[in-house]
This record gives sequence, C-alpha cells and structure tokens, in this order.
Amino acid sequence: MTATSNPLRLYELVLASGRSASPYVWRTRFALAQKGLPYESVPLGFTEIPAVLGGRFKTVPILEHGATSLSESWDIAEYLERAFPGTPPLFSGPGELATVRLFDSWFSVEVMRRMATVYLLDVHNAARAVDQPYFRKSREARPNVASLEAFTADRESRLPALREALTPLRLHLARFPFLGGHAPNYADYIALGAFQWAGSVGTVPPLAKDDEVLRGWLDRGFDLFGGVGRVAGLRPLFES
Amino acid sequence: MTATSNPLRLYELVLASGRSASPYVWRTRFALAQKGLPYESVPLGFTEIPAVLGGRFKTVPILEHGATSLSESWDIAEYLERAFPGTPPLFSGPGELATVRLFDSWFSVEVMRRMATVYLLDVHNAARAVDQPYFRKSREARPNVASLEAFTADRESRLPALREALTPLRLHLARFPFLGGHAPNYADYIALGAFQWAGSVGTVPPLAKDDEVLRGWLDRGFDLFGGVGRVAGLRPLFES
Repeated sequence: MTATSNPLRLYELVLASGRSASPYVWRTRFALAQKGLPYESVPLGFTEIPAVLGGRFKTVPILEHGATSLSESWDIAEYLERAFPGTPPLFSGPGELATVRLFDSWFSVEVMRRMATVYLLDVHNAARAVDQPYFRKSREARPNVASLEAFTADRESRLPALREALTPLRLHLARFPFLGGHAPNYADYIALGAFQWAGSVGTVPPLAKDDEVLRGWLDRGFDLFGGVGRVAGLRPLFES
Repeated sequence: MTATSNPLRLYELVLASGRSASPYVWRTRFALAQKGLPYESVPLGFTEIPAVLGGRFKTVPILEHGATSLSESWDIAEYLERAFPGTPPLFSGPGELATVRLFDSWFSVEVMRRMATVYLLDVHNAARAVDQPYFRKSREARPNVASLEAFTADRESRLPALREALTPLRLHLARFPFLGGHAPNYADYIALGAFQWAGSVGTVPPLAKDDEVLRGWLDRGFDLFGGVGRVAGLRPLFES
C-alpha cells in the first residue's frame, strides 16, 4: 500500500526475504487496514532503526504522521483512535481496550515467550546478513539466552507446551468466529501477528495438522480487509 | 440483600458455614451489585439444587425473575443486560463481552483448574455434612479425579505454578487499577469470584505474602459497590 498524498508512514522490520517479520508491526498493519488508512511502508533492517528519525526509537513499528512520530504498537493504536475519529474504531471504549491489553499480557507470557524459544534462531537466520551479528549480540545479552543455539536447542520438545497454551483460544473459537466475537478486534490482530511472525521465519510449524479450530480462525483472519495477511511465501503453520 | 417487592431471586451455593462458595455465583453477585439491583438470596446446598424450580437446573447460580428462570453465569449476565437496560452496563458492546469471555477461557484453564487441584478436598470438607457424600461421588466420577485426597495430595507443591499463572494479571495491574482498566469490568468479577471461592474454603493461602500487586487489587475489588466482597470469615488469601 502506498499513497503519496497521504502522510502516514509505517517503519517495518524486514528480513532477507523482504518480508515484514515483527509481530508488533503486524498488529499495526491490521489496525491500519481495519481503519482503511493507506500508508507508505518503510522497510528497515534491525541495524537501520537507529538511523531513522534522529535515532529516537529503538524498536518498530514506528508510525510517522506529519510532524508526529511514535513507536510502541499500543501507543500507535491509541494514537490512531484519536487522530482518525471518523474511521472504524479499534475499541468500543476503555473497557474493551483494557481487556484486550489483559489478553496481550497473557498471550505474551504464555504464547509468544514460548514461540521465542522455538523461533529465535530462525529469526536470526532469516534476517539480512548485515543484521545478523547485531541480532545475535543483542539477544545473547539477555540473561536467559546463553546463545541462540542453546536457547532453541531441543525446540521440538517445546511444541506440545506451546500448543497446549493455545487451549483457551480454541475454547473461545468454538463459540465465536473471532477472538473479538462475531467481528474481529485487536485481540485477533495480536494473535494473528504472532502467527505471521512464526510463518515468516519458522523452519518448524507451530501447530499440529489436526488443529482445525485454529486453522479456520487463521484462514478467516488472514482474509480480513481484502487479505492483508495473505503475504506471499508464508511458511507452513501446520504440520503436514 | 433482600427486597420483598423485587422479583429477582438468586439461588446460591452454601457451605456449612452459611457462606456462598461458588465462584460463578460470585460473578453474578458482583454483576447485580454493579447494576444496583436488589435481590433475594436463596441458599442451597449441593444436594438441594435438583429440588428447586422443577429440577430444571443442575448448577448455580440460578436467577429467577418473575416467570423467567435461567442458570449459567454468562447467560445470566447477558440476561441482566437485556432485562435492565437502564442500569450500568456490564459490557460496552459485543467486542468487550467477547474479549472478557476470552479472558474467562484463559482464567478457567490456567488459574481455576490449578485452584481446583489445591482446594477440591477443602470444598468437600467445608460443605454441609449432608452434601459431602454427593460432592465426593460426583467429583470422583470425573476421569482425572481418582479421589479427592489423591487429587489434592501434595497440593502445596502446586502453589508455585498457580502463582506463576497469575503473572499476566500482575503485569496488567502494574498499568491499571482493575482488570477492566480504570474502572472494573466483568473480568474483575470473574477473578475476584475465584478468590472468594478460595477464601471461602481454603486451608492453605493461594498467594505469597509479598504479592503486593494482587493484594492491592483484591482490596480494591472487595471494596466495590459498598464492600459486597467483604464477607465475614473469609480465610487468608496471603501467607502470613
């Protein structure tokens, strides 16, 4: 999506494949799509983030809108609500926003943390060659990451716990087509973003072949807003 | 709360102590309190549920409102929204309702299921003597419960995992005073109800002494609506 007349610019993380890989950028992509807001995409490798906007930001997504620029996907979501009041709202009000943030806390702790123990080395390997040394050094500086290889060793043994952690989603999706109910909401974008991330880099599928409930939801979710999630070359999310 | 002129009647589960013990009844209690709806409480032991309302219901809460009676706390919550449109709404709309249900799925799987492995025998022991044989028989018929004693054996070793499962709540409550944000919502009632349940029967506290974030939230939550959660004789929720 590009729109030279529109001042919205989204700085995204790119891999060697050119694919956008950050689960947090994907949240913003879905939010912009729901609101029907066109934007110019600015692809950045890991090491290029400090080189833009005066080095003010350490992470993507970064949204630039005229003279305003900000990072952090939640701040961006709230900014989009304020700045574009005529567009379809992401949240019906502060109660829905807070409850989605509660979901985000759960999903980050129980699901995304487990995904990282499966995919961190895959992210490294999928990054542009020029970004790989930075990525390795920054992640291996974390207290729980001795090395990317050690962190993801025996990763297949962690898949059962990752799949088990998704049980609440399956229970919910037996009742509703989306996490947000009969229509998707930002909780869907959070979870869909994580699977876009896994599918952008993963050399092992996160989900079992027979996980029909999540398969149906992922299909519906990637089809949203004209198929914004249908990016070329996504790796398999289900075992074959 | 009694109101002879008001047709709302809430059938609750009582223990030998006279205390209301069901986490699901507690959700309805908080919902009625938020809406400012007075009701007549009808205490029932486990074995008395089939003896009321023609035996139509197997579980509490049961809400009776004129000619209407229904069970299941979620059905009751949605009924209260429809039947009393002039009262403070429980949900700003379908997106908030669905996201709270998503929280409920998570909380049931990760937290309440763990609480059951700690407290199931305590529930039995706190029940009226006449209800204890039924309670034991029905629970021991479940495939994962060989006996109440075996199910809760070594229960203290499960407290760390229970406390760890509450991490997302702590992360969220570092940002907001309530799970629902700056004001409580039904997600708070779900979680407060579980702690009312634990505090009604528990002979071991679920939480560590230094869990100040959850302590602050529980204090605020039990104080809501004139202190509806401040029931006499609640057992300690924190280790001393």
